[in-house]
Amino acid sequence: MSDQIVLIDCPDEKGLVYNITKEIYGRGLNIINNQEYVDTEAKHFFMRTVVEGNSLGESFQEKLFEVLPDGANVRLSSIKRQPVVIMGTKEPHCLGDLLLRNAYAELPCDVKAVISNHDDLRSLAESFQIPFHHIPADGVDRHQHEKKISECLRLYQPKYVILAKYMRIFTPEFVAQYPHRMINIHHSFLPAFIGASPYRQAYDRGVKIIGATSHFVTENLDEGPIISQNVIPVNHTYTPEGMAQAGRDIEKNVLATAVKLVLEERVFIFKDKTIVFE
Amino acid sequence: MSDQIVLIDCPDEKGLVYNITKEIYGRGLNIINNQEYVDTEAKHFFMRTVVEGNSLGESFQEKLFEVLPDGANVRLSSIKRQPVVIMGTKEPHCLGDLLLRNAYAELPCDVKAVISNHDDLRSLAESFQIPFHHIPADGVDRHQHEKKISECLRLYQPKYVILAKYMRIFTPEFVAQYPHRMINIHHSFLPAFIGASPYRQAYDRGVKIIGATSHFVTENLDEGPIISQNVIPVNHTYTPEGMAQAGRDIEKNVLATAVKLVLEERVFIFKDKTIVFE
Amino acid sequence: MSDQIVLIDCPDEKGLVYNITKEIYGRGLNIINNQEYVDTEAKHFFMRTVVEGNSLGESFQEKLFEVLPDGANVRLSSIKRQPVVIMGTKEPHCLGDLLLRNAYAELPCDVKAVISNHDDLRSLAESFQIPFHHIPADGVDRHQHEKKISECLRLYQPKYVILAKYMRIFTPEFVAQYPHRMINIHHSFLPAFIGASPYRQAYDRGVKIIGATSHFVTENLDEGPIISQNVIPVNHTYTPEGMAQAGRDIEKNVLATAVKLVLEERVFIFKDKTIVFE
Amino acid sequence: MSDQIVLIDCPDEKGLVYNITKEIYGRGLNIINNQEYVDTEAKHFFMRTVVEGNSLGESFQEKLFEVLPDGANVRLSSIKRQPVVIMGTKEPHCLGDLLLRNAYAELPCDVKAVISNHDDLRSLAESFQIPFHHIPADGVDRHQHEKKISECLRLYQPKYVILAKYMRIFTPEFVAQYPHRMINIHHSFLPAFIGASPYRQAYDRGVKIIGATSHFVTENLDEGPIISQNVIPVNHTYTPEGMAQAGRDIEKNVLATAVKLVLEERVFIFKDKTIVFE
Repeated sequence: MSDQIVLIDCPDEKGLVYNITKEIYGRGLNIINNQEYVDTEAKHFFMRTVVEGNSLGESFQEKLFEVLPDGANVRLSSIKRQPVVIMGTKEPHCLGDLLLRNAYAELPCDVKAVISNHDDLRSLAESFQIPFHHIPADGVDRHQHEKKISECLRLYQPKYVILAKYMRIFTPEFVAQYPHRMINIHHSFLPAFIGASPYRQAYDRGVKIIGATSHFVTENLDEGPIISQNVIPVNHTYTPEGMAQAGRDIEKNVLATAVKLVLEERVFIFKDKTIVFE
Repeated sequence: MSDQIVLIDCPDEKGLVYNITKEIYGRGLNIINNQEYVDTEAKHFFMRTVVEGNSLGESFQEKLFEVLPDGANVRLSSIKRQPVVIMGTKEPHCLGDLLLRNAYAELPCDVKAVISNHDDLRSLAESFQIPFHHIPADGVDRHQHEKKISECLRLYQPKYVILAKYMRIFTPEFVAQYPHRMINIHHSFLPAFIGASPYRQAYDRGVKIIGATSHFVTENLDEGPIISQNVIPVNHTYTPEGMAQAGRDIEKNVLATAVKLVLEERVFIFKDKTIVFE
Repeated sequence: MSDQIVLIDCPDEKGLVYNITKEIYGRGLNIINNQEYVDTEAKHFFMRTVVEGNSLGESFQEKLFEVLPDGANVRLSSIKRQPVVIMGTKEPHCLGDLLLRNAYAELPCDVKAVISNHDDLRSLAESFQIPFHHIPADGVDRHQHEKKISECLRLYQPKYVILAKYMRIFTPEFVAQYPHRMINIHHSFLPAFIGASPYRQAYDRGVKIIGATSHFVTENLDEGPIISQNVIPVNHTYTPEGMAQAGRDIEKNVLATAVKLVLEERVFIFKDKTIVFE
Repeated sequence: MSDQIVLIDCPDEKGLVYNITKEIYGRGLNIINNQEYVDTEAKHFFMRTVVEGNSLGESFQEKLFEVLPDGANVRLSSIKRQPVVIMGTKEPHCLGDLLLRNAYAELPCDVKAVISNHDDLRSLAESFQIPFHHIPADGVDRHQHEKKISECLRLYQPKYVILAKYMRIFTPEFVAQYPHRMINIHHSFLPAFIGASPYRQAYDRGVKIIGATSHFVTENLDEGPIISQNVIPVNHTYTPEGMAQAGRDIEKNVLATAVKLVLEERVFIFKDKTIVFE
């Protein structure tokens, strides 16, 4: 999996694919996979290209900037196990699922630590030999609490912070430290049931389907760019607790899917939405 | 399909199933199917029993009222083709699907007429030999328009009025004429995207799944008891129009499912929610 | 929708995307959409490119053959309403659904006629003003029957023949007349329940999910390249008839999906499988 | 959750629900939940009743045998954590998922041990403090191997043996020791792709959906009564390995669902099929 991934987005114009592939072909390289998309409303072009080998570097990037229109973004990456930190509160299902996948290399990540505002998940993290940090929120103000979290995160230099049912809301200042680098799981089919107790809301409304949504965290709660969603049918026999229980399987799968898509560099963010090259 | 359906709901107490089945067994009748549910929050009991033959009548109902707690509802019904009227505006997909199912007796209904505020659907209705009434909304006020619709509906005495993408909002006075007897299809996964242009809203929010919801019409728009919902995956390549197109198949299936469930007497309404005995 | 579609498949080699887009860019044309796929086992390349306008012709094709490896296929097409003939037997649901979509231009086809070995579907076809041909199979041998069908089809010069629950099996000789141009709907999730009475087989096996499969017809029954599949959950309460009834909605949606994919030129056939650029 | 569950099946006749609920009501007990089903082809009746409290015993059972037709089965149970043993080979995903659910009491079971023919899963089992037994199959004949497994199982007296991707086939003699007490996960949507390498088979056939099936183990491989199934869409871009990877999430969810249904006493087995009261 040492092949390189070229990630480009720029204003759309004629000849983009030609100009980009010319630079790759000119270097004698083989394209393994190529995906493109044009947002025709915004006239913006997106491309994800997997190129065999590991020879592309700064000079390739510079060359592309020459042939692409102003405002182009060009990023070189590859699929490798990126450092991540997982945050949770008390519920073990999403954390446990991610730790299992981490242990068996089903996700291209390397979980460096688990941070929680409660101590409940310690034994789970430690059974997988992952450092666990209990940073209580009680008795400290919000900024103090976040300061401690920031200090702890800095120890591990995570590429992404994964909120695996972390049940507290961050300040915009905290979120700004990890722009488009925090991935959350919300236990509803957003934008339905924004806010607290979505399963209770779903029960009260009498819906016949419930869901879960994974999204990037932005300063507007529950409004970050959506990465992945999934649903399951329910019916009148489900209590709010029954919905929550049924929802847990969806939550953990949706979060794992989103984490995989992001870590495999399949996700572009553009104007509060995502382009996902599956 | 001439078997009788007994529909009971009442405050929950011990012995309800025993007391009800005793009356049926005492008459020497065979129960073909029996479904029960207790809303444990509201302490309310629901039962749908299919009894062989056609011999139950008023005396059975009276007897049940004797043995059931105060506040019981007992209804005798059977699956037969009920008169319905369909209302639409311009889009043919839901209407066409219902007319096809009606023509081949896939639904236990008998479509008596189609009413629309536009003339576009006339040829579709008439190709199935169904009377079509064009009742324009232009140049008349809302109450005048609804008065004409009411007069037209009265001609056909429908058991249910099916809104197959009827794009106007009724006044509470009109809705009150058909309490729990109007079935609507909303082109979103309610309560997400309440109101106008849900596919545009879904596009703007960047959701990865869209849906449709069939519900009873109440005076609060988009808030009636939900009967059926379904969803399909979408992605960044869908324009609002592409979502609308993909959504049409879901809309027509969800509406047909809801109409079938209601006409087969499988749906109880209780406190703005439905109990659906599938 | 008058844009051109370029469909290319050839043995894989370096520089294909570059060489192809060079020819398009050299003509000053805009690529609206571009999809590529490499079958890495077979080392074969597939590309579907939508090019703005209508200016590509034979010289472009010839130029591509020059730059592409031996064995390349290059086809120029566009999305326009293609002539099709639908064949059925007695069941109306798939036929009715296709005729509705045809009437409202939801599919890029132009249904020229309906052919059936029974007369049951005549009124359905005629209510949509589509010529209906009853070609009975009784009292004639198989080849005579197929000869009559062939003669009838020849009148309409269909690009595709759609088998909308046509319940007879064609001889290899007949199939050879429409290579990769006959689309069938099979009422099971192939390869489960090959052959007759799949819903009965599904009932007997006690499956919890049933499905439908649309595929190109080849001389090996139920083994043609699969275009589209879908499923729905069932349970122990479903009789074989109940499964068949529930299956009808899946059948008609799967067939319509497959027809749309094929008519929009999104489907390549390669080694008994399909590449579907959705 | 100490309420009692009454599980009854018998030849169908009039008055069964009445006769059963009479005995419950006569004891002054409250029915919390009641589900019935009649297999009308086989004329057989099934009922699962949850009764408040813990007072029903042998005398109730005897009384029921008196009022029920010959051939009745009556079982009293309750939802409590039952002893189970899990068997695996090398793949960790199903085992890990079950151990997580076991650790957080999401399933009413108590995993007593893990047995495998390889040593790969030892650390996973041990990180959850579950005894791990490596019983190699190499260098011993089949019956010797199974004899060792039997001896090991006997230590733990499991109510159920869960095969979490155990990749060996048992002899009928072994299976006979745990009649309807072994639950397997098969990595295909049975009966499609019976036998080895189902993902390879699915790839070769070019299916657009893959699935997983959980079933009771009987002496006929892959033919035991199906408990639960689920599917996910795939397309031409999936290699056999990609299908296997995507399938793992379905496999673990389907197996966990089946185990939950069985342990909650929701599953009747009748004539090689299941009745599942969800």
